[in-house]
Amino acid sequence: MLVVMAKGATEEDIRRVEEVIRGHGWEAKVIPGGERTAIGVLRNKGPIDPGIFLQLPGVKEAIPVSKPYKLVSREMKPVPTQIKLPGGLNIGDGQLILMAGPCAVESLNQAMTIARAVKAAGARVFRAGAFKPRTSPYSFQGLGEEGLKILAKVREETGLLIVTEATDHEVLDLVEEYADIIQIGARNMQNYRLLRRAGQAQKPILLKRGMCASVEELLMAAEYIMAEGNSQIILCERGIRTFANHSRNTLDLGLIPYLRRETHLPIVVDPSHAAGRRDLVIPLAKAAAAVGVDGLLVEVHHQPEKALSDGPQSLYPRQFEELVNELKAMNLFLEE
Amino acid sequence: MLVVMAKGATEEDIRRVEEVIRGHGWEAKVIPGGERTAIGVLRNKGPIDPGIFLQLPGVKEAIPVSKPYKLVSREMKPVPTQIKLPGGLNIGDGQLILMAGPCAVESLNQAMTIARAVKAAGARVFRAGAFKPRTSPYSFQGLGEEGLKILAKVREETGLLIVTEATDHEVLDLVEEYADIIQIGARNMQNYRLLRRAGQAQKPILLKRGMCASVEELLMAAEYIMAEGNSQIILCERGIRTFANHSRNTLDLGLIPYLRRETHLPIVVDPSHAAGRRDLVIPLAKAAAAVGVDGLLVEVHHQPEKALSDGPQSLYPRQFEELVNELKAMNLFLEE
Amino acid sequence: MLVVMAKGATEEDIRRVEEVIRGHGWEAKVIPGGERTAIGVLRNKGPIDPGIFLQLPGVKEAIPVSKPYKLVSREMKPVPTQIKLPGGLNIGDGQLILMAGPCAVESLNQAMTIARAVKAAGARVFRAGAFKPRTSPYSFQGLGEEGLKILAKVREETGLLIVTEATDHEVLDLVEEYADIIQIGARNMQNYRLLRRAGQAQKPILLKRGMCASVEELLMAAEYIMAEGNSQIILCERGIRTFANHSRNTLDLGLIPYLRRETHLPIVVDPSHAAGRRDLVIPLAKAAAAVGVDGLLVEVHHQPEKALSDGPQSLYPRQFEELVNELKAMNLFLEE
Amino acid sequence: MLVVMAKGATEEDIRRVEEVIRGHGWEAKVIPGGERTAIGVLRNKGPIDPGIFLQLPGVKEAIPVSKPYKLVSREMKPVPTQIKLPGGLNIGDGQLILMAGPCAVESLNQAMTIARAVKAAGARVFRAGAFKPRTSPYSFQGLGEEGLKILAKVREETGLLIVTEATDHEVLDLVEEYADIIQIGARNMQNYRLLRRAGQAQKPILLKRGMCASVEELLMAAEYIMAEGNSQIILCERGIRTFANHSRNTLDLGLIPYLRRETHLPIVVDPSHAAGRRDLVIPLAKAAAAVGVDGLLVEVHHQPEKALSDGPQSLYPRQFEELVNELKAMNLFLEE
Repeated sequence: MLVVMAKGATEEDIRRVEEVIRGHGWEAKVIPGGERTAIGVLRNKGPIDPGIFLQLPGVKEAIPVSKPYKLVSREMKPVPTQIKLPGGLNIGDGQLILMAGPCAVESLNQAMTIARAVKAAGARVFRAGAFKPRTSPYSFQGLGEEGLKILAKVREETGLLIVTEATDHEVLDLVEEYADIIQIGARNMQNYRLLRRAGQAQKPILLKRGMCASVEELLMAAEYIMAEGNSQIILCERGIRTFANHSRNTLDLGLIPYLRRETHLPIVVDPSHAAGRRDLVIPLAKAAAAVGVDGLLVEVHHQPEKALSDGPQSLYPRQFEELVNELKAMNLFLEE
Repeated sequence: MLVVMAKGATEEDIRRVEEVIRGHGWEAKVIPGGERTAIGVLRNKGPIDPGIFLQLPGVKEAIPVSKPYKLVSREMKPVPTQIKLPGGLNIGDGQLILMAGPCAVESLNQAMTIARAVKAAGARVFRAGAFKPRTSPYSFQGLGEEGLKILAKVREETGLLIVTEATDHEVLDLVEEYADIIQIGARNMQNYRLLRRAGQAQKPILLKRGMCASVEELLMAAEYIMAEGNSQIILCERGIRTFANHSRNTLDLGLIPYLRRETHLPIVVDPSHAAGRRDLVIPLAKAAAAVGVDGLLVEVHHQPEKALSDGPQSLYPRQFEELVNELKAMNLFLEE
Repeated sequence: MLVVMAKGATEEDIRRVEEVIRGHGWEAKVIPGGERTAIGVLRNKGPIDPGIFLQLPGVKEAIPVSKPYKLVSREMKPVPTQIKLPGGLNIGDGQLILMAGPCAVESLNQAMTIARAVKAAGARVFRAGAFKPRTSPYSFQGLGEEGLKILAKVREETGLLIVTEATDHEVLDLVEEYADIIQIGARNMQNYRLLRRAGQAQKPILLKRGMCASVEELLMAAEYIMAEGNSQIILCERGIRTFANHSRNTLDLGLIPYLRRETHLPIVVDPSHAAGRRDLVIPLAKAAAAVGVDGLLVEVHHQPEKALSDGPQSLYPRQFEELVNELKAMNLFLEE
Repeated sequence: MLVVMAKGATEEDIRRVEEVIRGHGWEAKVIPGGERTAIGVLRNKGPIDPGIFLQLPGVKEAIPVSKPYKLVSREMKPVPTQIKLPGGLNIGDGQLILMAGPCAVESLNQAMTIARAVKAAGARVFRAGAFKPRTSPYSFQGLGEEGLKILAKVREETGLLIVTEATDHEVLDLVEEYADIIQIGARNMQNYRLLRRAGQAQKPILLKRGMCASVEELLMAAEYIMAEGNSQIILCERGIRTFANHSRNTLDLGLIPYLRRETHLPIVVDPSHAAGRRDLVIPLAKAAAAVGVDGLLVEVHHQPEKALSDGPQSLYPRQFEELVNELKAMNLFLEE
């Protein structure tokens, strides 16, 4: 924390700030300047509330200097984290992993049809929701445990791993039994009870960025999980809410290189939710791959016009295949 | 839903759209125009996904016409809802109700000191958190049930009613026993499990708008509660996230008159969280009162520099009194 | 500028930063900390580019400490500026000044009709555009100099002062001849050629905040004007662009108390452009008055359904009168 | 325009809307629905103001149906526009064109050094500002005409074409003499005087999207230029202002495929201004190329730490070369 004094601040104002700093058991370091004086705060543990100083006379600003996240930070662990999954899948090893599937599990037949198609195209993980958080209480909310059982059958038959969402901490108990990767959705990024439960899980967590979460909030959400003991976390960018309304959200690809510097955790991108409309998905997926991510999460449905949720943003299987081919043409996706 | 055709759309394109509409059991009404044709969709129940049409050839746009919320809408119930509380308090009857108190319950002494001060100034409801959702896992998370017991003592001694937050559905069981009004925080506005549980509660719910929630999402969250049977809901605007960083959030006061037209539910404003800094709270509180709200939720702490959370945005008791006096001077607050 | 080193920064990294600082002719002050070292930059004139340091090895962050604006700052001139106008009008003396009128001058009859009505209700300044910046090249662009002549007649007959927009530096030559206050619109807030010309004008400037301008950018735009010698500047908040689409823009009232601390310039609010729809204008106007501004800029039209621009956000004269009465009832507006 | 009536709207309310529509010389088409009635407006020329209807009793909403842009629209001209430049350069023919150079021309030596480097790496156009719009009146504002003469020498010696900014309509007279492509900057996207002058120019215009411009506003700005007779327009996405502050702006790549559907004009991306920091530029440039744009505008400086403006976001020449190599490795850039 750096406390910057106003130009007209008196000696007494400065002394008062020093006293408050020492009163908290920290150390104060006065930095006289040409125009104004600043006072550094040292030896604090954890973040300091700027308001402690803003309310004192003669104080112009209080600027936080250190970041509040620890365990997830690259400073703490310079080596990138890799998530090792059954079947030799390794998220974060430099390869692009494709995770694809419908928004929701609707039936065994639907899931299996799509799973076979995305596997044939190159996907290694099947994504589909059994528990769906929906804006309207009147919309289809997912098949629940029946959906999880279908996902287990899909894995058994296709060998694809399963990522699916846990919408609350009790649902997570169930999801943990069936899934290979447990997803926490954007609306739940700050559901701390759920995050703590995820921290006790034995499975990797795919944590989606909230629609208007800052980098710091995203990393602090991951910190909640890691503080409980689970360090297997995959971060997921899926678009932020902005004034621009030509797409559902605005995909924030500048986040990826920024996160690479800040954290050791692997990062994937979901272009489907960012786009909200099919014709933007392939371009955004290619952009994300070109930036350099550890995986893509893509919605695919063989009959999007009949899908029970998010049909309009789902690719047809042949479009997913086309995407994979374009990724190969850019040397961004390697066949095994 | 209105499906707008592109200029070059063929007769066949139009017929195809009509067929899709009828295939869903709805009615299609073609509206020929000078420049282009539009097709209205009738007899649908519930919202239609625009993507159903966007993927058809010759379709330019698909524009939703009806709103997805029903129970909370003013069309459904033109008369404003009033929330009747013990002690004759009535939220939504045209009077401004002041709800004030610290961010968190820290001790019996702290709570009682602040409660007496805000009551003396004119508050009718005491606000303080026993369960605190915090961005950092390392921050103070509230006293839990002990905090609720302190709140009950505050009510007993001062006669103030209690509003306090339930951070998940199990916490809500506990909060319902102690509180007069159960708060759902901004980060939980789309925690549907919590919303459903709130819908089964016998106490009124104060529902805070999420930091980047649209009007529609806010009203759909209230719809979740109401669909479960609880129609005692107070909506709360507390600032939205924008590019502007001189305040923590941007208070969206235009929402209030807009909501008045859309819903019958009472509305309160929390200027403290919008401001994030003490010197903006009084001006924003006065602005909200001038717009015409049913209540204000204001953070007050007698020792904000020692507060365990959100100290910098808490008013001193004498500032709260000053705010009340200014509201009286504007004839926006009446003493009993 | 405070340069914060990464945890693993070496002695050499620190020396390199010191050298770069000295190489620019500034002074370096090393501040060793428990966790990491920071280096303060002293004796610089004007803002420093953080990127100078961000590119050096071992540097974590570079945090600007001082503000770039000088002449407009409260630190430079602690006493509030008052703008003295003909007829004894004084903007910034604590009184609320009402500026009202149609979006555009359409005819002498239209302007005079509205001017008489707003004057009768309490307005002191007539606002109307002769040169209109319009999103579409096909929309009505204003009457031009003919409009200015009509405005001059309105002043002559009613005694109202005139505020009207100059859309470029050549138009400003013309506007300066006729207007009492020269308006610079939101889209031109960073039209530096226009700002410089405004700085050479002998009339006060009403400078509107750009739709997505930060506080700093707004104040730097005023600094452009003031640096050319014109210190008669009125700042105007008119709403910012956010994700919220229930109103045209989101009125940022937290800006007002923030600006009061940062600058000595008077501040007015335009609730009409923020709202974009008539039913939100009165509530937002009252809110702005309650926050404490030096004036309101309100669109009024006697036949908004026939207005050539922005009709839907214009109040009817009787609504403007109603607004004035409500402001009086709140003791926020005093009759002479 | 579709006027949607409230549920309780009376027959008289509907008749009144019909009358207003006919009063404007348009045609009204009533569309009765199960829940509510809608009324289509036909035979209007140009956009209709929704407010005309919103102010009538019984009206719930007024939804614009047609887009206001004409000349720039794909509906008007389905074939993509190609901009043919001297030396056989063709923007919009499917090839990625690299435009690179420093933020500002600082000296002949600086410009020539960078120009040679970017040409060697594969650039075809040299970008550098002679007239610089700067937030601070105290910052370096460019070399003016001297800078343009330097650019002419760069072209003469290297064969690179020149793109440089015109900051107002008089500057454009000068820029037109020297440049091959005239740039209009983001802050001037709605400087209509400048746009009209650009519409009379004999050279292509590179039009940058304003920091918070909607798609519609961007296309309407291009419409201003095209309405004056210049159809040689290149649109440029350069990031929008959002709450996210880890990069200077948020690059909106979803805009590109959306624009492809709406307009026939070629599109380029400027990753440097979006990023604001060097380490994000290469990833974002690759992302933009992967989405499929007609060109990239990249800032390059051989001594960014000494640059007079925007040094921190400039690539070193060797980084630019690295970017080109990575684009080649993705088969997104072809050597001649």
